Amino acid sequence: MNIYEKRLSRARTSMNAHGLDALILTPGAAMRYLTGFSEPGSRFLALIIPDDRPWLLVTPTLNASQARENPAGIQDIRVWDDALGWDPLLVQLSKELMLDIGIVGLDDDMPARFALRLQEMMPTTLLKLAGTALAPLRAVKDALELAALQHAAEATDALIPIAYAACREGESEMEIALAVQQATARGGFADSFAPIVGAGANGATPHHNTGKTRVKTGDVVILDFGAMTDGYHGDITRTVAAGTASDEAKRVYEIVYRAYSAGVAAVRPGATAHEVDSAARKVIADAGYGEFFIHRTGHGIGLDDHEAPYMLAGNYTPLQPGHCFSVEPGIYLPGKFGVRLENIVTVTEDGTARVLNQAIPPEILTL
Amino acid sequence: MNIYEKRLSRARTSMNAHGLDALILTPGAAMRYLTGFSEPGSRFLALIIPDDRPWLLVTPTLNASQARENPAGIQDIRVWDDALGWDPLLVQLSKELMLDIGIVGLDDDMPARFALRLQEMMPTTLLKLAGTALAPLRAVKDALELAALQHAAEATDALIPIAYAACREGESEMEIALAVQQATARGGFADSFAPIVGAGANGATPHHNTGKTRVKTGDVVILDFGAMTDGYHGDITRTVAAGTASDEAKRVYEIVYRAYSAGVAAVRPGATAHEVDSAARKVIADAGYGEFFIHRTGHGIGLDDHEAPYMLAGNYTPLQPGHCFSVEPGIYLPGKFGVRLENIVTVTEDGTARVLNQAIPPEILTL
Repeated sequence: MNIYEKRLSRARTSMNAHGLDALILTPGAAMRYLTGFSEPGSRFLALIIPDDRPWLLVTPTLNASQARENPAGIQDIRVWDDALGWDPLLVQLSKELMLDIGIVGLDDDMPARFALRLQEMMPTTLLKLAGTALAPLRAVKDALELAALQHAAEATDALIPIAYAACREGESEMEIALAVQQATARGGFADSFAPIVGAGANGATPHHNTGKTRVKTGDVVILDFGAMTDGYHGDITRTVAAGTASDEAKRVYEIVYRAYSAGVAAVRPGATAHEVDSAARKVIADAGYGEFFIHRTGHGIGLDDHEAPYMLAGNYTPLQPGHCFSVEPGIYLPGKFGVRLENIVTVTEDGTARVLNQAIPPEILTL
Repeated sequence: MNIYEKRLSRARTSMNAHGLDALILTPGAAMRYLTGFSEPGSRFLALIIPDDRPWLLVTPTLNASQARENPAGIQDIRVWDDALGWDPLLVQLSKELMLDIGIVGLDDDMPARFALRLQEMMPTTLLKLAGTALAPLRAVKDALELAALQHAAEATDALIPIAYAACREGESEMEIALAVQQATARGGFADSFAPIVGAGANGATPHHNTGKTRVKTGDVVILDFGAMTDGYHGDITRTVAAGTASDEAKRVYEIVYRAYSAGVAAVRPGATAHEVDSAARKVIADAGYGEFFIHRTGHGIGLDDHEAPYMLAGNYTPLQPGHCFSVEPGIYLPGKFGVRLENIVTVTEDGTARVLNQAIPPEILTL
């Protein structure tokens, strides 16, 4: 039994435990996790896990040869053609697999164009989200996945000096981002996401759209980027000062650094995601900046760049060995600047966090 | 009234004409088309177009400052916070905007995680797809959009010599793709999609996953790539021979070239998408290769790389001036090679197709 067959078996067990009779997954992280196979495209392509029959793939003719080579060794491949569309095949399958009288979990990322159409074809089916059954499985990384995430982290770390070298006065945010992207491509990696470079006041918008603003002396600059390998994502954030750092920038940086450290220190098996968030948030609140930390402390990472577990107030999920997620507190001062610091950590058996990335400088780096 | 306000007004008119009481659009091409604003992310962010009240934006705190700067000048911005989640706000809005007693069109690309959750929050709402109302509007490009598509086409054409130079014996598909991607980034453009490079027998899979296969003498190689600018996509395919071309490769290429030419020649206002598909398909069928042309003849292009109108058997949509789409017939010979030729065309007022890209060589180019 290969790794994908094992995962498919566990997915079916979890599906049943969560009261679902079948899963329909479209291309993306969940399908890739379970089969090693996922093809982008605008046509309907799906993995179907029925209750007590073999799993199968539905594919347009265009991707049939790729589907037949799926690493999970799935033999039952049902092909539909552009000229007929996917409706007749799905209507037939809904009867054959008894999807029409069950509770079916849809891929959380399935586009509404497919989800609503499926509901029309199977009006008596109760549709739920597959993620309730799959996210807990995917959140716990096995040794192969940890190795892939470590590889992505190292590829991401290798971009830090590139980003620092590009982050000079007069350079635009886009030029800095481009330097990072070119180095990513040269290294043979893909971007995890479009790099976020926020100079000066732009950094006060956590997800600033990297633009034409040029770095000025004294700017605090947020650099958030990642390299991806084998589908596994890297994601780090560094904050630096251009030329010179103001006392306020130094002070805010040190608070965020202490918040980051407190978040990492709170990571251990059995602690909750809520506690990690609280530990980081308390440092910032105690320093008087609570209202300027306007997002959760972190997100899980793997085949998706954001996935379970989320380090979020009210998320009482207990952490387990193999969980991988970001710790990334920030302080955002409107009209002034922002500071965010982020590394990826994993929960280890021995009761601590292992940080996958290079250490974050405890004081703001002046470039 | 700016361009976005005009589009929003037209969208509301079309929404009513299609029997929808409101639209809920999540980040992506439709939101960008209507507002100039779209933010990637995993949190719920939406444009809501109610029936008889001002349109509004729902945003997480994280993107609030960006939402307030939306180019459409939308003033009503509703913000939700990570700690509370988006549920309370949406439940309130569903009552305030009377979404709970209407027929609501969801973004065709809205992930099921949002679509199914909205259905739970608004159990008496009938959910449909917004695309039925929006796709016909978006399919007809205005002068600004045509200029953007022309710009994307020229940026894409500029990559052709790069691709040809990289496509040498001994180079791998990935190396060729990387050369194209690096040149795209150097030009200040984004990839429209991950380049498809299919060497030899790999080319017989239309959407081959660019891999480690190296180009050998005599290989027919498919090169499919595009540059994107201001959100508008480029997309072309060229097929070349490495070192030497077999008689079969020459013959198949010429058939595909004639099919491409016939497809383009069939484009005029009032012709149907079906007719364009048929014109190209007939050339290939008449030459005896009908069973090896295993996909539709083309797809619309704009803010999405695949959108209406689709050049597909059975699509009797009449073509209109401003429609933009690919014409891309292909012949795929399993175990041997594939040939696909693709340019983007637009329907003009004067009754012909204008090809946005450089002319395709009528005979296979040997590199």
